[in-house]
Amino acid sequence: MNTLGLISMRMCAGLMGRRTTMLLRSTRCSFGMTLSQIDEEVAKLLELKAQLGGDEGKQTFVLKTAKGTRDYSPKQMAIREKVFNIIISCFKRHGAETIDTPVFELKETLTGKYGEDSKLIYDLKDQGGELLSLRYDLTVPFARYLAMNKITNIKRYHIAKVYRRDNPAMTRGRYREFYQCDFDIAGQYDAMIPDAECLKIVYEILNELDLGDFRIKVNDRRILDGMFAVCGVPDEKFRTICSTVDKLDKMAWEDVKNEMVNEKGLSEDVADQIGQFVSMQGGLDLAERLLQDPRLSKSKQACAGLTDMKQLFSYLELFQVTDKVVFDLSLARGLDYYTGVIYEAILSQTLPAAASTAAEQNGAVAGDEAGVSVGSVAGGGRYDGLVGMFDPKGRKVPCVGVSIGIERIFSIMEQKAEASSEKVRTTETQVLVASAQKNLLEERLKLTAELWNAGIKAEVLYKKNPKLLSQLQHCEETGIPLVAILGEQELKDGVVKLRNVATREEVDVPRFNLIDEIKTRTS
Amino acid sequence: MNTLGLISMRMCAGLMGRRTTMLLRSTRCSFGMTLSQIDEEVAKLLELKAQLGGDEGKQTFVLKTAKGTRDYSPKQMAIREKVFNIIISCFKRHGAETIDTPVFELKETLTGKYGEDSKLIYDLKDQGGELLSLRYDLTVPFARYLAMNKITNIKRYHIAKVYRRDNPAMTRGRYREFYQCDFDIAGQYDAMIPDAECLKIVYEILNELDLGDFRIKVNDRRILDGMFAVCGVPDEKFRTICSTVDKLDKMAWEDVKNEMVNEKGLSEDVADQIGQFVSMQGGLDLAERLLQDPRLSKSKQACAGLTDMKQLFSYLELFQVTDKVVFDLSLARGLDYYTGVIYEAILSQTLPAAASTAAEQNGAVAGDEAGVSVGSVAGGGRYDGLVGMFDPKGRKVPCVGVSIGIERIFSIMEQKAEASSEKVRTTETQVLVASAQKNLLEERLKLTAELWNAGIKAEVLYKKNPKLLSQLQHCEETGIPLVAILGEQELKDGVVKLRNVATREEVDVPRFNLIDEIKTRTS
Repeated sequence: MNTLGLISMRMCAGLMGRRTTMLLRSTRCSFGMTLSQIDEEVAKLLELKAQLGGDEGKQTFVLKTAKGTRDYSPKQMAIREKVFNIIISCFKRHGAETIDTPVFELKETLTGKYGEDSKLIYDLKDQGGELLSLRYDLTVPFARYLAMNKITNIKRYHIAKVYRRDNPAMTRGRYREFYQCDFDIAGQYDAMIPDAECLKIVYEILNELDLGDFRIKVNDRRILDGMFAVCGVPDEKFRTICSTVDKLDKMAWEDVKNEMVNEKGLSEDVADQIGQFVSMQGGLDLAERLLQDPRLSKSKQACAGLTDMKQLFSYLELFQVTDKVVFDLSLARGLDYYTGVIYEAILSQTLPAAASTAAEQNGAVAGDEAGVSVGSVAGGGRYDGLVGMFDPKGRKVPCVGVSIGIERIFSIMEQKAEASSEKVRTTETQVLVASAQKNLLEERLKLTAELWNAGIKAEVLYKKNPKLLSQLQHCEETGIPLVAILGEQELKDGVVKLRNVATREEVDVPRFNLIDEIKTRTS
Repeated sequence: MNTLGLISMRMCAGLMGRRTTMLLRSTRCSFGMTLSQIDEEVAKLLELKAQLGGDEGKQTFVLKTAKGTRDYSPKQMAIREKVFNIIISCFKRHGAETIDTPVFELKETLTGKYGEDSKLIYDLKDQGGELLSLRYDLTVPFARYLAMNKITNIKRYHIAKVYRRDNPAMTRGRYREFYQCDFDIAGQYDAMIPDAECLKIVYEILNELDLGDFRIKVNDRRILDGMFAVCGVPDEKFRTICSTVDKLDKMAWEDVKNEMVNEKGLSEDVADQIGQFVSMQGGLDLAERLLQDPRLSKSKQACAGLTDMKQLFSYLELFQVTDKVVFDLSLARGLDYYTGVIYEAILSQTLPAAASTAAEQNGAVAGDEAGVSVGSVAGGGRYDGLVGMFDPKGRKVPCVGVSIGIERIFSIMEQKAEASSEKVRTTETQVLVASAQKNLLEERLKLTAELWNAGIKAEVLYKKNPKLLSQLQHCEETGIPLVAILGEQELKDGVVKLRNVATREEVDVPRFNLIDEIKTRTS
């Protein structure tokens, strides 16, 4: 008798009332198990587990968030809002719309889209009804949305959380629930124009976020495939060699070559030929040179990719971003669904551990867990086949997009805030309505309401008789710049004492003029 | 041999390579199963299921979102953004911070918080590890957050999606995934000051959203309990009678009385006494009168509630909102966790079916599915005990909050937009860079980049030689107000033809002046 026999015996022994039913069912099932029968058995085992839970010592209630997740504190939210504002402004400047999709999809919508990583998908419990899974990225729901609504062109951004049942090193800033921030252009257009705009957007965002110097590496799947072909890599090894090449940003060429030869079974000669290509970097000039390369020019695919690369660089020059963009033949990116141009932005600055590990996950942000360099903060490319996978007639909608590595950027901004002497404000309050004397609560509330009604951001302490000191301390702690102080004398004189918290200067402002004065001072 | 024995036999037969391992393990396990062993067996069964999956006939793929969920189109998102901006501005004007919590919590965090509604909680599949559930509202995660971080005072808002495995009538605008929009004040403060601010916030938001006339009903759990006590309702029936009273906004008194007498077993006399009380409406005056009521004044609870009600109304007068607030003894609200003041805002206007059904769910927004009147767009109250349920030492943190019925408000705004002649813009693009002649793509891209760099929201069609007509049509369709037209002559003259899409007026603007001109025209 094996393990499972033992479980069921224990079930029968422990839950006598069920014994008859189970024996009956066992006869019915003696021809073999169907899927739904397995489901039933699983449910039974889990029920048993729940019952055993009671026996195995009472679990004390643990006050925590689920593994791999975190709350965002007000301070983190303030930083998050700042980053989002910069990014969303850029997307809007480029005329993008936004959409939202549900946090879960039918399980089958996600099936077959992520290869090996599918094991990281969070499934919902089968509580009767459809089988559901939490979204793993925003790209597959986007493709499903386009196919479902028969949309053939759209420029949209989508910022939302995605879920991966990974085992992240949380101390190093990786999570099971994290943001993705995607911008995509879908539609049949003239070559390389939307692709160039995606790169322009990355350039603008990284500039505005002020994260230090960066580079944007560009390559093309067709150039990679052509290169593999002319180097003599067998067709069926293109993808696996591609993912080895993708490690060049983290590993030395010798180690990459080693993997190609010893693990992936390439000959040393083939590996060396690849080695020559992947060491090349340049711009429009390199694309032109490679078009003349006697070997590479034999590949139709490579030529198509190189011609587009030339075109891309000519547009990038018009967009004035070529100072940061490099055509780099070592850039591969792991995801299967890319069909053309691919790119990745890398910060030049060395970063502390937490931020750089968050970056690995942001490869994740681009849907690509495997191959992302340590400093990567954005990535993307062209995927012309994904929407067709959802269309009943397989109609293709060409897409190109970019994913901003937002978790990574949060980490960097948090560290910057930590290092800076300037305090992060979590509220926007302009003025606290205070009093130095007792029995003025009603006057304080009345004035506060006047300010609210005039659109001034105002607070008042919820105490009948707070001390002036604790009112001033509240301002210091939360960064409120002004205090409007009421006293018997001020009320008689029809004025309010307006105090600048930083300088401690106080002036009497006529009550009728208070709103204008606050607006002037805080504008 | 029972079912489970059969499964394992089949596993051994089907997956011969594993047989030795399994038999070995069965010896090790012969003393009985532990939780982790059950996990392993479940995993094994699920693996078997996955392998069987291939055999059981191909399912046809259905292109849809999960039951009870929907995508938000760009147009819906534009309306959503407008509503959120108004609400968030109000929260910020009142000095609120914001937090975020994960979309799922440990199952046990949600256990015992929602009574009967617990059956509507979405559980995640047990894929090994913690048992997780999707959040059902934002209040319980908030209380968990406070207890976990030992926060004793905070004023925060939280806008996020929550999940209920309900059977919503989706045609009538109800969903399984929907937004909640909560504002709460936690902390030990002088009575009724934060409570009054919550009502002021509801007043401001409903005014600014311009949804027509509204009323805010106010009551207090302690007044209700005191009233039940003096009318002779047995203690153990307080909650169930409370939920019957709560139906008064949807049912006539006769039907409510009927339920009390025939279903809940009250005597007719007791029901009639309740009937007298729940027909009362008023303001500060009613609270004063009831404090003198020979029966009600016998209840300590009721007196405490009535004294606070008087205090509340005095603050509401200072806040200038008493024109819309009514002390209404029929307001009950279903949720168990309220301990003091409760309130609900109702639109006066009659609304079409979709919007009013979304409202039912927004009772849901307040965590209260049962008792919400048809026109309800906000609700909340004081809950002083909830945080203590999470604190290991039971330390209480008094809380008062309000939930804005945002899904309902979306519905109303969408209908308004539908009815209005004004088109909802889904982008903010200020200008389209166009040309009337061929071969000017590069000039168009160059000018577009100049505009982007100057912060102008600009678009350009991704075509080499688009027709002027299709460029103008794009502006008409998406509401872009200006077109910057380039031609050979304009390039020679150093000007751009700036066209007003609505009036069709065109003027030549010197290129160096274009950015200022666009800014002036669109400010």
